[in-house]
Amino acid sequence: MRVRWALEEIGQPYDVSLVPMARLKDPSHLARNPFGQIPTYEDSDVTLFESGAIILLLVQQHSGLAPKDAEGRARAIMWMFAALNTVEPPIVELEQADLTETDKSWYGEHRAAITARITARLDALSAWLGDREWLEGAFSAGDLMMVMVLRRLDGTGIVEQYPNLAAFVARGVARAAYRRAFAAQLAVFEESKTA
Amino acid sequence: MRVRWALEEIGQPYDVSLVPMARLKDPSHLARNPFGQIPTYEDSDVTLFESGAIILLLVQQHSGLAPKDAEGRARAIMWMFAALNTVEPPIVELEQADLTETDKSWYGEHRAAITARITARLDALSAWLGDREWLEGAFSAGDLMMVMVLRRLDGTGIVEQYPNLAAFVARGVARAAYRRAFAAQLAVFEESKTA
Repeated sequence: MRVRWALEEIGQPYDVSLVPMARLKDPSHLARNPFGQIPTYEDSDVTLFESGAIILLLVQQHSGLAPKDAEGRARAIMWMFAALNTVEPPIVELEQADLTETDKSWYGEHRAAITARITARLDALSAWLGDREWLEGAFSAGDLMMVMVLRRLDGTGIVEQYPNLAAFVARGVARAAYRRAFAAQLAVFEESKTA
Repeated sequence: MRVRWALEEIGQPYDVSLVPMARLKDPSHLARNPFGQIPTYEDSDVTLFESGAIILLLVQQHSGLAPKDAEGRARAIMWMFAALNTVEPPIVELEQADLTETDKSWYGEHRAAITARITARLDALSAWLGDREWLEGAFSAGDLMMVMVLRRLDGTGIVEQYPNLAAFVARGVARAAYRRAFAAQLAVFEESKTA
C-alpha cells in the first residue's frame, strides 16, 4: 500500500506481481529481497527492497511527493525516517505481542510497557503536529509514510486518544491517490480469493 | 557516532554541541528535534533530526558515501533503510529488555524470542553478504549504517556467531574515518567528565 499510494500520488502506472507467502524464502525472491519481505520494486534500471528506499527513489525522480526546494525536500525525507525508525518500531512490537504473547501470563504487563513506548512517541508527534494540516507545509512522502505507520494501530484505539493525529490520518486516507491505491489493493485480494 | 563517521568519510569539518540528558525535553530542543532525541544537524540552510536523514543529506551533497551512478546510489540508500527499519528494531528491543526486564520472571523467555527475531535478520544479512567486502561493491553509507547497527550488539555475542558479519564490522571500524570519529567522540566524553 505504501508504494502503491506513492505511485498514485505521482500518477505513474505500475504492474503488480504477487509473491505468495510460501515463496518468500525462495532463492529467486531472496536474490531480489534478501530479508524475504515485500515489497520489491523493479524498473528498467534498478531493483530495490525496503519501502522507504523505493518511495525515496520516486521522490527523487518525480514531483508530487516533496517540495522542490532543497530544505523542504530534506525535511520531507526526514519525516520518512522518523516514521520508519522512531514511530514504527514500537508499533511493530505491539503487533508481535498481540500475535504471539496473548497466551502468556505476562502479556498484559508487556503490552502496557510497549503501549507506553508508543504513546511517548505519539505525545511528541501530536505536540509537533499541533493544528498543522501536514507535518511540514504541503503533503509529502513524509506524511504518506507517517499515515501508513499510524494506520498499523487501527483497532487499538491508541491514535484516537490524539484527535489531531486521528484527523491527520483521516486527511491522508481521504486523498484521491490513497483511495485509488486502496481500491487497487482490494481488487487484488478479491481476485486472489476467486482464483 | 553515525553522523560523525559520515562527516569524517567525506572530510567535512563540523562543530559539536552536547545536549545534556536533562535538556532533551526542553522546548528549545524539541523545536529542533520533536522526539527529544539526538543527534540534530544544523547547517546554514536546514535543521534535521534522524541520523538516517542527516546522513542521506550528506550522501546527496558530497561524494564518498555512495557510488555516483543512479543505480548504485539507490542501492546504497536502500541498505541504509534496511539497517534502520529491518535490522535495528529487534536490536533496540533487546536493549530495552536488558535494561528494563531483568527482574521479571519472563525475562529469559522474552529475551529468547527477541534474539530469534534478531538472528532471523542476521541469517539473511549474512547470506546476502557471503564473501563480499561490503554490502554492494564499494563502501557506502549503507555499510556505515549497518556496521553501526550491528555494533549495538557488542557484548551480546550474537554477531560473533556470523564470522562474515563480524569481519564486516571489523572492516568498518578499522576505517580511518571511523577511527577519527571514535577518537573525537571519546575526547568529548573525557572532557565532559573533567568539566
